[in-house]
Formats: sequence, C-alpha cells, structure tokens
Amino acid sequence: MQKRQRRVDHRTRVGQERSARTETRILEAAMGVFADKGPDGPKIEDFVEAAGVSRGTFYNYFDSVEELLAATSEWTTRELIESIDSLLEGVEGPLLRFGLGLRLFFVRAQADPVWCRFVARVWKIGGLEFPTRDLEDGARLGVFRTPYPAVARDLVFGGVREALLRIGTEWTPADYAERMTELCLRALGADSRQVAAVMKHPLPSAPLEASRRGVKGD
Amino acid sequence: MQKRQRRVDHRTRVGQERSARTETRILEAAMGVFADKGPDGPKIEDFVEAAGVSRGTFYNYFDSVEELLAATSEWTTRELIESIDSLLEGVEGPLLRFGLGLRLFFVRAQADPVWCRFVARVWKIGGLEFPTRDLEDGARLGVFRTPYPAVARDLVFGGVREALLRIGTEWTPADYAERMTELCLRALGADSRQVAAVMKHPLPSAPLEASRRGVKGD
Repeated sequence: MQKRQRRVDHRTRVGQERSARTETRILEAAMGVFADKGPDGPKIEDFVEAAGVSRGTFYNYFDSVEELLAATSEWTTRELIESIDSLLEGVEGPLLRFGLGLRLFFVRAQADPVWCRFVARVWKIGGLEFPTRDLEDGARLGVFRTPYPAVARDLVFGGVREALLRIGTEWTPADYAERMTELCLRALGADSRQVAAVMKHPLPSAPLEASRRGVKGD
Repeated sequence: MQKRQRRVDHRTRVGQERSARTETRILEAAMGVFADKGPDGPKIEDFVEAAGVSRGTFYNYFDSVEELLAATSEWTTRELIESIDSLLEGVEGPLLRFGLGLRLFFVRAQADPVWCRFVARVWKIGGLEFPTRDLEDGARLGVFRTPYPAVARDLVFGGVREALLRIGTEWTPADYAERMTELCLRALGADSRQVAAVMKHPLPSAPLEASRRGVKGD
C-alpha cells in the first residue's frame, strides 16, 4: 500500500515536472512570437508551431492568446524583477537603488534582443509595470527634484521603452544603455554629482541570465 | 467637340473627387481601427466594415493592410507637420520652434484621442518620424546642451509617445501636456530660463483641426 502510494507520488511528480516543462516551452516560444508579431497579431497556430506542441496540448495550458500574453508578461517580468531585487539586497538609498536597477535591467536587455522587443511591444499589458517604490521614496526624500514627478516618470518610462526598441532591433553603441540611464536619472531631477556616483558604482554581478530559464513550475 | 471635351473633363473631375472622398473615408476609418486594434491586429474585413465600403472598393485603393497602414500614417502625419510648419512660419530659433511645435502637437493630441492612440501605436511605422531639424540646429548652436544628443532624442521621443498613450486612453490633468513639453525641453539640455520663455510664449493659433479632414486628393 505504501509502495503503491510512493509510486503514485512519483508518477504525479514526474507528471508535474513534465507539465511545468511544457508550460515553460510554450511561454518561451510565445515570447519570441509576441516579440516578432506584437501583442495583437499572432494566432494560436503561431504558438503551437513555434513551441512544437499540438493544439490540444496548448489548450491544456492556455485558453486564448490574451491569457497566454498575460502569462508570458508575468513570467518574463517576475523573474527579472526578482533577480534584480536580489542583486540589490543591501543597497541603500532610492537613487542608487533605482539607478543600479535600471543599469541591471539594461544588461539583461542587451543580452537578449528577443526579450527586449517583447517587453517594448507589450509594455503596460499584463502587469509589465516599472517598479516605482524607489522613485516614490526618492521624491519624498528630495533626491529626485523634478517639479512634476508623475510626468517625469512617464518621460522616463517612455524613454526606457524607446531604448528597448532600439536595442532590440538595431546595433547600438556599447555605452548607449549607460547613457540612457544617466539621462533618465537627470530627467527625474537627480543632482549631477549624485548621478555620476551611481554611474561609477560597480554593478552587483550575478548570473542574471541563468535565472530566467526554468524558474516556472518550481 | 469642345463641349464634349468639357463634359469629359467634368465627368473625370467628378469621378476624381468621388474617388478622393472614398479614399479619405477609408483612411479615416482605418485610423480608428488601427488605434483600437494596433498595427498588427486588424484584418481587411475590419476596415471594410468601419468604412462602409465593399471589399471590391477597398481593393481599388489598397492592396493590403500593410499598404493601408503606411498610407494612413503618411496621411495623418503629413497634414499635421504641414499645419504646424505653417503656424511656425516666421518663428526664429530652434528652441522656440521645437518647443512651440511640441506644444502645438499636443494641442492636436488632446483634441483627438483616436489620433493620439493611432500615432502612439504605429509610431516608427510608415514615416511617423519626429521632425529633427530644429533639434539638430539647436545642438549645433549650443541651445541644447545635453552630453548625448542622440540618446536624449530617444528619451524625448519615448516620452512623447508615452504621453500620447496616456492622453489617448485616460483622463489627464489640463496641464499634463505642457508639463511634458517642459520636461522634454529640459531633458534635451535647454536652459531653465529659456524653457520658461518658450512655455510662456503665446501659441500661434489657427484652426489646426480644420486642416485634417479633406486635404487628401487636392
């Protein structure tokens, strides 16, 4: 009886693992399809073909393109925000945190053009929101001295998206993302000397890349 | 003989006018469809239905959704740039020209949420490019003192698109666009006092709205 129970557990676990792998496979394929065709263009067939699964299998995981888009957005954002958050552990001060976070964000961007185009194109759909806590803290503490914080935030978010589009679709100079980060911090009203300090600060390093694949289903 | 010739001319002209009206009708409908569904989502049927024309008539004017998107982009951009250009006639100095141009651009945006969403969503497709001449002149003359002019331009373009998305999809405070303009000029590295002068400058006024409809086919 106990033996049978164990065997069932094992089978269940193997089944769950296989299921998580299939879901991850669909999500990875979906990121590429959305990156190329935008959020509104693709049909179920495009995902089925890209993931190499049957239509039936696809529908075991997702009911519609909309649901898949939301899941893909959440999947690609969550792990990145988590990995940046963990790299920033112990870093103090909203300007340094936001600045280093943005630099790390662009490191990922430059390493992965598909991810870049995906984020740029589906931005604002399915929870792809910029972390604003450090911005709010910074405004409260007077580190960001822009006269219009909410408008400055829109300017910066738009600029970051524009940068992702450019990085994802064409060659950019090696220092493009660092320069964009610097201008974003200035646009938020940070002091030049403080901005320079953020830009010179060593980047917390860890295998950002490794964290994306295979986090789903754990 | 002459009479017949005149009659043919008349008939040709009436035909051309009708044809231009139909094309304009399709373009106006297309702007709304693209604004709602994005550049990749819609099918020919969506345009046929929105314009209230037959499939056959549609294909007399456009061969594909891509061609229609390019034509709609060109149509909505050209007349706006022309109308802003004519309002800026006689205005001297790249900062004042760019700043007033951006303010006029936002006046149109706020008057027409559909146009707003259209421009925000199809940006960079089909010739929707920001006029950069004043920016280049301004950089050369030292009016814009950003250390990285090309990157600052991306930041500003991205911010303007973000603003269009916001204006096109939700309520914004009355001074939102003016504040965004001000922050854009600062992000380009313009001097605070000069920015204040641009923002206080009376807006050249003319019926911007009237220029859009019916310019096609003239």
